[in-house]
Amino acid sequence: MADPPGSARDLGLGTARVQALGDGIFAIALTLLVFEIKVPSPATVSAADLPGALAALWPKFAAFALSFVMLGISWIGHHNQFHFIRRSNRALLWLNLLFFLFVAFIPFSANLLGEYPESQLSVSVYCANLSAAGLSLYFHWVYGVGRGQLADPVDPAVARVVRLRVLFAPVAFTAAIGVSFASVKAALLVCLLVPLVYFVPGRIDRAFGGGDRG
Amino acid sequence: MADPPGSARDLGLGTARVQALGDGIFAIALTLLVFEIKVPSPATVSAADLPGALAALWPKFAAFALSFVMLGISWIGHHNQFHFIRRSNRALLWLNLLFFLFVAFIPFSANLLGEYPESQLSVSVYCANLSAAGLSLYFHWVYGVGRGQLADPVDPAVARVVRLRVLFAPVAFTAAIGVSFASVKAALLVCLLVPLVYFVPGRIDRAFGGGDRG
Amino acid sequence: MADPPGSARDLGLGTARVQALGDGIFAIALTLLVFEIKVPSPATVSAADLPGALAALWPKFAAFALSFVMLGISWIGHHNQFHFIRRSNRALLWLNLLFFLFVAFIPFSANLLGEYPESQLSVSVYCANLSAAGLSLYFHWVYGVGRGQLADPVDPAVARVVRLRVLFAPVAFTAAIGVSFASVKAALLVCLLVPLVYFVPGRIDRAFGGGDRG
Amino acid sequence: MADPPGSARDLGLGTARVQALGDGIFAIALTLLVFEIKVPSPATVSAADLPGALAALWPKFAAFALSFVMLGISWIGHHNQFHFIRRSNRALLWLNLLFFLFVAFIPFSANLLGEYPESQLSVSVYCANLSAAGLSLYFHWVYGVGRGQLADPVDPAVARVVRLRVLFAPVAFTAAIGVSFASVKAALLVCLLVPLVYFVPGRIDRAFGGGDRG
Repeated sequence: MADPPGSARDLGLGTARVQALGDGIFAIALTLLVFEIKVPSPATVSAADLPGALAALWPKFAAFALSFVMLGISWIGHHNQFHFIRRSNRALLWLNLLFFLFVAFIPFSANLLGEYPESQLSVSVYCANLSAAGLSLYFHWVYGVGRGQLADPVDPAVARVVRLRVLFAPVAFTAAIGVSFASVKAALLVCLLVPLVYFVPGRIDRAFGGGDRG
Repeated sequence: MADPPGSARDLGLGTARVQALGDGIFAIALTLLVFEIKVPSPATVSAADLPGALAALWPKFAAFALSFVMLGISWIGHHNQFHFIRRSNRALLWLNLLFFLFVAFIPFSANLLGEYPESQLSVSVYCANLSAAGLSLYFHWVYGVGRGQLADPVDPAVARVVRLRVLFAPVAFTAAIGVSFASVKAALLVCLLVPLVYFVPGRIDRAFGGGDRG
Repeated sequence: MADPPGSARDLGLGTARVQALGDGIFAIALTLLVFEIKVPSPATVSAADLPGALAALWPKFAAFALSFVMLGISWIGHHNQFHFIRRSNRALLWLNLLFFLFVAFIPFSANLLGEYPESQLSVSVYCANLSAAGLSLYFHWVYGVGRGQLADPVDPAVARVVRLRVLFAPVAFTAAIGVSFASVKAALLVCLLVPLVYFVPGRIDRAFGGGDRG
Repeated sequence: MADPPGSARDLGLGTARVQALGDGIFAIALTLLVFEIKVPSPATVSAADLPGALAALWPKFAAFALSFVMLGISWIGHHNQFHFIRRSNRALLWLNLLFFLFVAFIPFSANLLGEYPESQLSVSVYCANLSAAGLSLYFHWVYGVGRGQLADPVDPAVARVVRLRVLFAPVAFTAAIGVSFASVKAALLVCLLVPLVYFVPGRIDRAFGGGDRG
């Protein structure tokens, strides 16, 4: 109990390793997305037919790009939460692992979407996967703030803005599942629009107090 | 020898890199679990048959979810041990590598279980793999505490609780192998029950002195 | 707001995690390059035919070695930029993710080049991929320096040298695409020459003020 | 130039990221070793034939275990070198990347050995791969010590012991290539004996000044 203030023990379990595990899982998921796209082989596709064979892969490239962006958004969200959350416990570790479970599943559902881009089922699986990842990130924030696992108290207005921002994606992806029953194409359009919301810097960015003021 | 107190040299070899290697191996093993589940291809499964094809994958999804949880428990255990163990030496590095060897093997045996969910052999291989991982984690703790590779002395009562907690899983999985000779289904049930024990926070969590007191 | 000077909050978002994510993505991309080279199997290639089968893989080994070197150059470039850039914001994170997207794609295009080493299309895809990765790294530097996300002001002469050095590879690879329309072999030669430029230590290395003075 | 002593700038480029990249590459190589072992599928192997099918995989399990140990030895060697080497420059980064290139190749040659365990060529490729990895680690040490990229001067006797210890494996594996022309089995035996040398703690461990004194 004589540890210097600020040591890992003083703060309970630190968050360095759960962040490291998360970075590893995101790095692998991001890279495996491409690995699922099979390169044509000269045994079945001649060099002359290569342009057509590559062009035929476009749904997979599109699923890759969209999923990369969604994983990027999730990673930034996870990253930003740990700017505030500085202490860990068993419940928080399990909330992280639940989030990582859905993140690790994204290459599967992205590949499924790339194989069956016009199937209502594959679009629903994809949206449900992203929704579940977003929801677990939402509960991570709510639990982390609510249980006070923080370095400093978070301004309640900032906490609320983050909460709404994190909640937006799972709500939109759940809505997209509903839309998919009417039109698969419209559901895909919803998926494509979600990321745009996250490119715009918001109050959360100003809360970091750095960078955007140039 | 003029290093400041607390420097890596002062403590002997530090544990930062062995933790980083472990985080990497866990991140990959967790992500590869999904990668082993092959996405159906339109070449062999029509969009109309997709629901049935996905439903037929359920033993693999179940093996994925169970293995993710077991890897999560192992990772938290490894993580928590290094909360106390702060110095490393060659023997401790090899105990870690032995543990990592069994962790790296889990995607193989999980996939085997997903392919042959009713086979006594595949259930036994799976349980033996988890047992071996758990046992090596147990010896890691016993060696680390016994040889005094610690930041501060560990309360003997805490050390004993951790020891029993770490030992529980390999004992249960070894028992499951025995059960499998009588009934494969009963052995799988044992596998499903083991994780429940680890969800409950115990004395070890209170020993961290943080987080759970809200 | 009472954080000590130099804390993460004081600097806005830190760069530790984006560097960790980058290291993970590079580690995986570097390792997956080899994973794409399929080992012959005794089922199709007898032990007697193994020398010929391995020799026939040479374009893949060459694509592996070249891509490993190019990824190494990109990683060193990324690494060096963060020697100067010490603060992050949403735009910088997205510039990093864009860079990572192209890095994650390199195993695909390297494999494509290994399968179709004489195809104008596969050489172009490969060069375009490396070009895009280099360009995003260039914009990362320009943005980072221009927006002042730095620990200390960068000597404008150093900043300019870095800018030109980072810009060289994408310009050369774009030129190689042009050359490929005349001669695929000549374009490959350009690809092989680019790395040589980066082996020579330059002003940027002296700017680090360490190591090279022995 | 007003950085506090001990900052990254003061020491030239730090070594944190090259260590992180190395940990990532080792983590992936270690895990991919298993991934190369294909799980039997009920489509081709019935549950009744599973014991035989798993038993037939033994050369692959053996290649996995041996390679895991050799990768472990290399990782510990790399780890220990950075206990002394605290500054980086472009040459050192490239020596690391060369080492990583051979490390990333080990899953390929281990898999080749697992497929053709009795082939002189596959044993030679495997030994050459391990030899090349060991040699690059050797030059890393010689360069690091010789150019003074160190935190503190290394006791010349310790430096020499490390040099010989690092050199032993590539010499032995090169010898094994020679032996393989006479007898493939004898060459494999040499490969199995090399790791034993590295299990014994030596002067290098005592030099760390920690842990082994219990």
